[in-house]
Amino acid sequence: MGDMNHSVGLSRTELVEFDIELQLESGRLLGPLRLAYETYGKLNDRRDNAILVAHAWTGDAHAAGRHHPEDRKPGWWDDMIGPGKVLDTEQFYVICSNVIGSCFGSTGPTSINPRTGKAYNLTFPVVMVRDMVRAQQMLIDHLGIDRLLSVIGGSMGAMQALEWGVHYPQRVRSIVPIAGCGCSSPMAIALNALARQSIYNDPMWRKGNYRTEHPPADGLALARAVGHISFLSDASMQLKFGRRFSVRDGQFDFFGKFEVERYLEYNGRNFVDRFDTNSFLYLAKALDLYDVAWGFYGLEDALSNLKCPSLWFAFTSDWLYPPYLTEEVVAVLQDLGRPVSYHLIESDYGHDSFLVEPEKFTPKVIEFLGRISRAS
Amino acid sequence: MGDMNHSVGLSRTELVEFDIELQLESGRLLGPLRLAYETYGKLNDRRDNAILVAHAWTGDAHAAGRHHPEDRKPGWWDDMIGPGKVLDTEQFYVICSNVIGSCFGSTGPTSINPRTGKAYNLTFPVVMVRDMVRAQQMLIDHLGIDRLLSVIGGSMGAMQALEWGVHYPQRVRSIVPIAGCGCSSPMAIALNALARQSIYNDPMWRKGNYRTEHPPADGLALARAVGHISFLSDASMQLKFGRRFSVRDGQFDFFGKFEVERYLEYNGRNFVDRFDTNSFLYLAKALDLYDVAWGFYGLEDALSNLKCPSLWFAFTSDWLYPPYLTEEVVAVLQDLGRPVSYHLIESDYGHDSFLVEPEKFTPKVIEFLGRISRAS
Repeated sequence: MGDMNHSVGLSRTELVEFDIELQLESGRLLGPLRLAYETYGKLNDRRDNAILVAHAWTGDAHAAGRHHPEDRKPGWWDDMIGPGKVLDTEQFYVICSNVIGSCFGSTGPTSINPRTGKAYNLTFPVVMVRDMVRAQQMLIDHLGIDRLLSVIGGSMGAMQALEWGVHYPQRVRSIVPIAGCGCSSPMAIALNALARQSIYNDPMWRKGNYRTEHPPADGLALARAVGHISFLSDASMQLKFGRRFSVRDGQFDFFGKFEVERYLEYNGRNFVDRFDTNSFLYLAKALDLYDVAWGFYGLEDALSNLKCPSLWFAFTSDWLYPPYLTEEVVAVLQDLGRPVSYHLIESDYGHDSFLVEPEKFTPKVIEFLGRISRAS
Repeated sequence: MGDMNHSVGLSRTELVEFDIELQLESGRLLGPLRLAYETYGKLNDRRDNAILVAHAWTGDAHAAGRHHPEDRKPGWWDDMIGPGKVLDTEQFYVICSNVIGSCFGSTGPTSINPRTGKAYNLTFPVVMVRDMVRAQQMLIDHLGIDRLLSVIGGSMGAMQALEWGVHYPQRVRSIVPIAGCGCSSPMAIALNALARQSIYNDPMWRKGNYRTEHPPADGLALARAVGHISFLSDASMQLKFGRRFSVRDGQFDFFGKFEVERYLEYNGRNFVDRFDTNSFLYLAKALDLYDVAWGFYGLEDALSNLKCPSLWFAFTSDWLYPPYLTEEVVAVLQDLGRPVSYHLIESDYGHDSFLVEPEKFTPKVIEFLGRISRAS
């Protein structure tokens, strides 16, 4: 995992500015547009070895390597990206870009609205996953790539992969959606509703006009705790925490805590230091609105645009995007006669399985990418 | 359901005061003690036809009938209790009492602490389900009943039924725990942690010293929304809400809402008018602390005290107290050679199934109670 021999080494987040106004699904215009991205490996002469990695809700462009030699942790998917790894940087040119709406360099609610000279905050337009992909497409142009070998990602990354396949069929040769869905479920929306309300309830939120140095910390920490619960599973919580008490003599203390509570609180608090509240809300909205059939006559109509081979994974204990949501999409693709592979992976780690137990599905990814690669 | 021919008719909540100090599991003393209760039907001459109904988290003593002819709704388990119903009041004497710690007449955080002359608020002791049952036992004494024909309840009511069986084996002839467990899971605790934190985050909470007319409404409403999510299921939300938008033209409105969000908000708000925040927190604590093995060497040791027949139900889509939690208990009882029946009920309604689809399990209850009754 941390083996430097298989690391991409030092990596760096690049920024690119597009002096355009991007028309969003909502009809609103967003621009100028900045995208933050990282690349690993080299684009080959035929320019046909590029793989786009799409990140999840709170991810960023820093998918692999370290920004500084002393960084405690490498990028968020360093297990997957590097020389000899699944996304082998000796073979592939790997790109990861921060989505619009986020707070890690790409245009989002914390960016300055050129019309007002102030941060957008809630004047930022509601973006859909489709808009994120539309922006990524400009980056791919910028990098001089006509067709991506693949788009791969988990969770919101899986949604992006699917949108790529449906809306830019001429620009992708394959997609690998992991722990994704064709649309988010009311349960997922309900959980995000809790997260939203916990932020709205925080007087520091001030309808999104908080000052950066005084974020609605209590609200955001609680919102993140909701997220953590949805990423875990009953089984993984049993394994990780059981019914252990954090302070044993506190059993009859009104404010006593179980280990699982302490974990949620600790991780919620940490999150406040690294993520912007408005960005969190905008991305939650994008997740809730996600529906590949949006703007089409239905799921079949939407998916009929997807021509390339797709490789899907779902995880048995994932209750945020349960397997049936992937299976609905896969069934339609099969009916349409598209080249589609689907694997239901046994894992106890809930939605997080794709990060916790990659070894359970990566052999299939390696085989798939090899096949796509050779077919070029 | 609302058929007055099968109703117990007008019912009334009675109060009984016990001038004692009850020693709680925590070692703290609670007293004097008041219990609110209702009874339906008549105690027979042999005093052997009494069934105790134990309520869930936010329930009360008003299980059947109406307090006033114009009441819009009858008691919370009116479907089950009445002439010719499952708990047939022409045959049984049915008792339901509000648990200690609650806010519907029995001693709880809103009660006056006799030592200070003020409401307990957070000086109220942490109570366990075992303490609720200990208090109920005094009520059963007061009503002149030596042995209960049965104790029946869902959710926290199931926990009470099990505690009755384990701690007062000489006083119960059977128990019927529905959608229960031997101990609550870390997932259930984590969900309660969200509810707690949402209340703690509300500045109106004032560490439990809010004024009754100014409760922490935002926090309690959000806490209740957490509860609602855990009582439902992915499938029931798909059925009930799907991805319907509450205000269709609000799709790209930052504050636009899906139906499921509106439901959670509406029900959360309503709850504030009927439930006390501190009581909510104390009962959440009791649920989290619930472990039948508490104070024993383990589950087998605890369950070896349960001598009477028990009838258990779990529901396939219940993810708050999933079937495996009931099955763990049932397996030990079987190993101990106890008379135990268990039925896994197929239902899409999550934890709420026991309230939504009683017809799926009530025939087994009728048969069971008939058998226990005849064996007297």
